[in-house]
Amino acid sequence: MSSNESAAGIAHVYRGTFVHATYHTAVEILEDGLLGVDTEGKIAFIGSGKEVDRLSQKWGFEAFAVTQLGQHEFFMPGMVDTHIHASQYSYAGTALDMPLLQWLNMYTFPVEACYKDLEFARNVYTHVVKRTLRNGTTTACYFATIHTDASLLLGQIANDFGQRALVGKVINSYPLVRPVVTPRFAPSCSATLLGHLGEIAQNNDLHIQSHISETKEEVSLVKELFPDYDSYTDVYHRHNLLTDKTVMAHGCHLTDGELKLFRETGASIAHCPNSNISLCSGMLDVRRVLNHKVKLGLGTDVAGGYSPSMLDAVRRTLDTSKALTIQDTQYHTLTFEEVFRLATLGGSQALSLDENTGNFEVGKDFDALRVNTDAAGGPIDLINHGEGPKVYVAGKRVVPFVERP
Amino acid sequence: MSSNESAAGIAHVYRGTFVHATYHTAVEILEDGLLGVDTEGKIAFIGSGKEVDRLSQKWGFEAFAVTQLGQHEFFMPGMVDTHIHASQYSYAGTALDMPLLQWLNMYTFPVEACYKDLEFARNVYTHVVKRTLRNGTTTACYFATIHTDASLLLGQIANDFGQRALVGKVINSYPLVRPVVTPRFAPSCSATLLGHLGEIAQNNDLHIQSHISETKEEVSLVKELFPDYDSYTDVYHRHNLLTDKTVMAHGCHLTDGELKLFRETGASIAHCPNSNISLCSGMLDVRRVLNHKVKLGLGTDVAGGYSPSMLDAVRRTLDTSKALTIQDTQYHTLTFEEVFRLATLGGSQALSLDENTGNFEVGKDFDALRVNTDAAGGPIDLINHGEGPKVYVAGKRVVPFVERP
Ligand SMILES: [Zn+2]
Ligand SMILES: [Zn+2]
Repeated sequence: MSSNESAAGIAHVYRGTFVHATYHTAVEILEDGLLGVDTEGKIAFIGSGKEVDRLSQKWGFEAFAVTQLGQHEFFMPGMVDTHIHASQYSYAGTALDMPLLQWLNMYTFPVEACYKDLEFARNVYTHVVKRTLRNGTTTACYFATIHTDASLLLGQIANDFGQRALVGKVINSYPLVRPVVTPRFAPSCSATLLGHLGEIAQNNDLHIQSHISETKEEVSLVKELFPDYDSYTDVYHRHNLLTDKTVMAHGCHLTDGELKLFRETGASIAHCPNSNISLCSGMLDVRRVLNHKVKLGLGTDVAGGYSPSMLDAVRRTLDTSKALTIQDTQYHTLTFEEVFRLATLGGSQALSLDENTGNFEVGKDFDALRVNTDAAGGPIDLINHGEGPKVYVAGKRVVPFVERP
Repeated sequence: MSSNESAAGIAHVYRGTFVHATYHTAVEILEDGLLGVDTEGKIAFIGSGKEVDRLSQKWGFEAFAVTQLGQHEFFMPGMVDTHIHASQYSYAGTALDMPLLQWLNMYTFPVEACYKDLEFARNVYTHVVKRTLRNGTTTACYFATIHTDASLLLGQIANDFGQRALVGKVINSYPLVRPVVTPRFAPSCSATLLGHLGEIAQNNDLHIQSHISETKEEVSLVKELFPDYDSYTDVYHRHNLLTDKTVMAHGCHLTDGELKLFRETGASIAHCPNSNISLCSGMLDVRRVLNHKVKLGLGTDVAGGYSPSMLDAVRRTLDTSKALTIQDTQYHTLTFEEVFRLATLGGSQALSLDENTGNFEVGKDFDALRVNTDAAGGPIDLINHGEGPKVYVAGKRVVPFVERP
């Protein structure tokens, strides 16, 4: 068997337009493409529609079983939300009237205390998983709360609805869900705690997520609290929390030296422009991060960001880049294509999940959105005209929702 | 008959929560309010639900005929889009990859030429009227094209769907639609043409709309083309195009002296933040405009702005104000309440239509959105959860759509 053949049989074959990012091209458009998904949900082959006869012989599917996309339809990779607080979804869209550190005390901490109630948790977590799936988020990197039971529940809900997820506090393993070591941020942790978490991550080869350099006040606070460290980044680094499986949210005010440390360790940044603007935290210069060759994905940062839609994150990323262009007309504005890549392949790289997802490559799981730009229906925030997309995770259609077992 | 009684009978009475702006308060919330609409679509009374018996006797309606809003419902005034290019709706959401003056040549002018074809015009204009109504725009100030027949058609479509509108080029009168004198902008007009248009507006007491000071390049161009004038604003002013029925889009780069001229003449500004960011045109300092006591409303500026939703205009207005706050932490950020007012009452004042619409006052037309924050349904850009609102213009429900005669 050749290397690009799977042991599993072919479950689905789609013919039509495929749009995705590659490691070399921000947007590649395959017109009249032909993509086969095997029974394990992995992409078995991707070729041209013209090759349908040859491929059907090789892979053993009937040509009449091919699903032909409509004229106005295309597949794109599912979007990757690299930073979202599932527990804050209950007040998304409200409470954006103060800066970060006050905002945490006023809104976040009191609400998070409610998650000791499992029914409260089940209600909010079910809503956030369904809402983000509907919006086309096939992979989410979730912050939960300190409550172990509620966090386990979030992992279970994501897995049962078919969403790929990293979930803070989860220790159980699910097929689609992995645990992630999750200190909130340095100001809320002692050096001892950070060191302990770094050790756990190292010993178990775990993902790590936290916040960094979101606001200038926070940067000053860290300088006060950790006077013996070179920088905010150095605080995490010296406790083994900066690895190639680390994603840090925000990073608006990182120095060149700190970005160099990100590059060297392989740690990534979750850019959350809606949150950064809504809380007046700052504007991340994404171009500068990319020039430093630091991995970067996009995040909604619900509820500092008011929208649970990655399409909103795409739009706000462009807005922030354009705002920087208004300030400096020589600024190298991000293109639509580049931001598309950040929302898909870039996100999967930032989460070190790009072996499994992020674009349409043979051997990756088929996490995809089937978008119909001409569908009938009301106004939505995903696409100007029509219904929401069908959403696939690992080859399984998860929106419209399948009833949970 | 007392002054707040209407000659017409009562057609509808609603009881529940009413949210609107007044001339003194950015947001006034009436809980358990009672509002009566007469057979002409005007607000006959507004009081407390507790007064239902007294008011039903006074106005002659049956208490059981009162429509009770649900727990999660409220009425708010319809939103006023003070600047939207109906003819550009065909490419909304695309083509935002270059600055204004190139953008006009590359995309706008070629598309506008298509409007000599009436069926093309009917298709786009029907879509833009339906889409903006669905999004809660009860009043729109439209730019059309130089084609008289197509522009007349836009006026007719708006009127037939029940949207209040100002339409450039329309000469016919419809109950809900008024004509507006519409030079595109000074750089595309000779002084002679501007003088002629000023005369027409003056002789017929017409509304006037145009663009001003959107980009720095455009300001320089006007300085070159009109060397004998004090400023861009002065070009319009000296041709009688700056009146209390004038609305000028953008104004990002106006000087204090120009804002003073706006104040003195009663002319207003249509703030179009989505467009200004998308085309990297600039950021209007709305606080400064308000401090100058210049009237200001919000506009989508489709298709320089990619969204035909006034809720998007609200969000982008807040974003721009927050971006200015990030640049200067002492900046006096606009509040949510202030922006709500700008989208409703502020817009009606900017269009000199606030005698008829903009908030819930006795004698004004009942242009309203009935919003259910808890409605079942998919993701939409209006409200986080649920279906779109019901939309009322002049007391008539226009969304869901009533079939046109
Ligand atoms: Zn966060
Ligand atoms: Zn315009």
